Amino acid sequence: MTHIPPFEELHTRMLDVGNLHAAAAVLEWDQEVYMPSAGGPARGRQLATLNAQAHALFAAPEVADLLGHAQEQAGLTPDQAALLEEIAYDYARASRIPGSLIRRFSKARSAAYQAWLEARGRSDFALFLPHLKALIELCREKAECLGYEDTPYDALLEDYERGMTTARLKPVFELLARRQSDLVARIGRVSGKEAAPWLRQRWDTARQWEFTEFVLRDMGFDFKAGRQDRSAHPFTTNFSIHDVRITTRLSEDDFFSALFSSVHEGGHALYEQGFREEDEGTLLASAPSLGIHESQSRLWENVIGRSLPFWRHYLPALRALYPGQLDRVDAEDLFKAANRVSPSLIRVEADECTYNLHIILRFELEVALIEGKLEAEDVPSAWNEKIKHYLGLEVPNDAMGCLQDIHWSHGSFGYFPTYALGNLYAAQLLATMQRDIPGLWEEIGRGAFGACLDWLREKVHRIGRRKTAVEIIREATGADTGPDAFLDYLESKYASLYNLHF
Amino acid sequence: MTHIPPFEELHTRMLDVGNLHAAAAVLEWDQEVYMPSAGGPARGRQLATLNAQAHALFAAPEVADLLGHAQEQAGLTPDQAALLEEIAYDYARASRIPGSLIRRFSKARSAAYQAWLEARGRSDFALFLPHLKALIELCREKAECLGYEDTPYDALLEDYERGMTTARLKPVFELLARRQSDLVARIGRVSGKEAAPWLRQRWDTARQWEFTEFVLRDMGFDFKAGRQDRSAHPFTTNFSIHDVRITTRLSEDDFFSALFSSVHEGGHALYEQGFREEDEGTLLASAPSLGIHESQSRLWENVIGRSLPFWRHYLPALRALYPGQLDRVDAEDLFKAANRVSPSLIRVEADECTYNLHIILRFELEVALIEGKLEAEDVPSAWNEKIKHYLGLEVPNDAMGCLQDIHWSHGSFGYFPTYALGNLYAAQLLATMQRDIPGLWEEIGRGAFGACLDWLREKVHRIGRRKTAVEIIREATGADTGPDAFLDYLESKYASLYNLHF
Repeated sequence: MTHIPPFEELHTRMLDVGNLHAAAAVLEWDQEVYMPSAGGPARGRQLATLNAQAHALFAAPEVADLLGHAQEQAGLTPDQAALLEEIAYDYARASRIPGSLIRRFSKARSAAYQAWLEARGRSDFALFLPHLKALIELCREKAECLGYEDTPYDALLEDYERGMTTARLKPVFELLARRQSDLVARIGRVSGKEAAPWLRQRWDTARQWEFTEFVLRDMGFDFKAGRQDRSAHPFTTNFSIHDVRITTRLSEDDFFSALFSSVHEGGHALYEQGFREEDEGTLLASAPSLGIHESQSRLWENVIGRSLPFWRHYLPALRALYPGQLDRVDAEDLFKAANRVSPSLIRVEADECTYNLHIILRFELEVALIEGKLEAEDVPSAWNEKIKHYLGLEVPNDAMGCLQDIHWSHGSFGYFPTYALGNLYAAQLLATMQRDIPGLWEEIGRGAFGACLDWLREKVHRIGRRKTAVEIIREATGADTGPDAFLDYLESKYASLYNLHF
Repeated sequence: MTHIPPFEELHTRMLDVGNLHAAAAVLEWDQEVYMPSAGGPARGRQLATLNAQAHALFAAPEVADLLGHAQEQAGLTPDQAALLEEIAYDYARASRIPGSLIRRFSKARSAAYQAWLEARGRSDFALFLPHLKALIELCREKAECLGYEDTPYDALLEDYERGMTTARLKPVFELLARRQSDLVARIGRVSGKEAAPWLRQRWDTARQWEFTEFVLRDMGFDFKAGRQDRSAHPFTTNFSIHDVRITTRLSEDDFFSALFSSVHEGGHALYEQGFREEDEGTLLASAPSLGIHESQSRLWENVIGRSLPFWRHYLPALRALYPGQLDRVDAEDLFKAANRVSPSLIRVEADECTYNLHIILRFELEVALIEGKLEAEDVPSAWNEKIKHYLGLEVPNDAMGCLQDIHWSHGSFGYFPTYALGNLYAAQLLATMQRDIPGLWEEIGRGAFGACLDWLREKVHRIGRRKTAVEIIREATGADTGPDAFLDYLESKYASLYNLHF
């Protein structure tokens, strides 16, 4: 029998784990995009088997021994050592959670998701309440298994934003809340109530589709190594560096929705297509945190996609696509319409100025729920108070309030903050990128995104999981994670849009 | 610890095996239908992991013990006993093949498939020859592992058509060859060389698509539990009883191709949608042989889809779909065009009269190759001689000759005979169905396929793997598998089409 070195044995096993996860991702993609309605129950069982097999292969006790032996193996390259560190990190967390908790969590999540769908449909929080309670309890149990120093919420946050803590987020979110509320209030005093009248036209969905593909190609999305499909809720997934799928939604009434969702998912997709070939199939070909992933989508969608040079460049193409529909609309009109600030009840429809406020209220509720300072039954009233406080709006029903997001029904407490962190990281990256690429905006104004993509490839994408989010931002920008770059970006952009003076 | 009865433990394990196979089927479906071109290598690795995991779970030594205990378990229902028999049958075969042979086979198959693609593209048999030799060797090794009484080809045939033997096939195929060659020769003396001139029009592919969906719905295909997509090579797959996928191809130049491929795959799909709900996920929800599966596709495609009542019914719909294009075409014209007999080099384009001749020549070559009576290097000359003998045609190059089919590149020796058996079974089922349903053809002439589908559901679909192909045919028709019903059907149909007298 030939002796297989422990690194190679572990690596082969981890590739199998990765292949099982990739298979599950294909099944989930199909479920959202093409699966016929009656296929759901069997699909759920297939995914359960794949996840159980992957977990059994990954979290087996013999993996601890293999890891130990591999880490002592002589002659490992720096990349091999980095890979072992990442496997060890994931293994330590996975092995702290007993299989029985995973099974109970998975069962509770399925039931909660079904109940949430119905509760949201009927706007009846009571239907969801027992499931929410059960998931909060399970999350607290999970946090105890994982361990934490300060608050159990930190143990959950770690799953989505490694190294981030509640204590670090709180002052950042307080500053954002104050400054963004102030900005929104000032804009509210000068802006009209109505959207631009030219937006109220029918926008042929085939043309919208064509335009999204056109822009995605310009961005550098490789259609030979990916594709775009339609789905009710846009998302990005990948089955390898060379097979990255995005989805978008099309609505004849909405000029911007398909484009911005394609550009947003395109930003995620460029990241996935940008990992190193040699990392394929390993943990190194992944993002160190969801916040970093979100920084890519938000940079493309908000910073680039909602910029004036972007609309200047695409106006002629849009006029050709929609003959007669945009004759009296100029690039400034498109730019203004794409950046209209209007507090709304729904997070996924929020503009750049109000988006973080939606996140902050969820963060505050989640921390209080996990720390036991808020009872699940009091979520609707707490939600509604915070919406009033941050956005000045009344919540007419729970479907448009605390039942709007899928995350809690999945038991994903700790996920929301990564959206706001994505905004902060994106602004920090932008500030440095603008310094590094003097002609950046001229290039964007020509529809040439290559310099921008190259910069992101080097500073973010190709690193994969070799560095943490904090390290990536620090090394790319010279600064720690913080709100200043984002607030500078936001205030200067909207001051100019709405003629405000600071 | 609670004691899990062995049947339940085995059943749960087998459901996991089924889920891994279903996951692999989703990945394969995606690969053929939507996967971007660069996604291939990673997809191959993902499928290899899924297949290896499924095999490890199924063929593990402890399964033998579980099976033994389960078979001795008191109080099993007849269905549970039947399921155990099927598991035992598959297990016995799988456990006879060592893991090392499976890995070598799988590797050889991947290499052979790539080589075959290139060899066919360049029409260069030499590129494929070493791979063909290797696969024949591996098939012989596999046959030795599996065991056989008469010829190693029987061991291979068993994988596709359980219980069938070379000795039983030979006289049947000899009779078919003689009678079908004779029929083709007689038709050749009276038929014109050219296809109907009205066929040479452009047929809008969106309309073709619409028509295929229309006919599939009429047949009873449940689009809530299945879907149709496009692919280069039409196929049917299923991930559960409630998620059955078919594909079709569209060509603007071809009036019939999309329709007949949809009806053919639709026949397979109705079978998959017709298993019993309670068998879902188990071996009982599958066909006992490929020949039986093929009987369903051929019955729908050839017997029903190429019948005069079928075209009488759909002519008005077709005239509406293709305004002005079918004004001078009547149902008889459509019927004749759909049944034009013209010997051709390509199996998948063959008409009903010549199709089995293509199969018979492949069967003869396969038996000779596996028995060592023909060397792989002599395949092209043997192929070309047989094409001359059975169809009277010269083979201009190997791409249109012995390199045309994918099967050998997959190492699937023993598969081809099931296509011919499908024709025989379909004709036997038809003969009985016509007796059981007196108004059958009137109903088909009204586009009402319900009585036909109900009959097939009862006599074939709902049985699943509870009976063998031989038992299904015997119990449905009262006769053993044989060529008579097919020859009667063929000779009477084509005698009337071509005014022949027997």
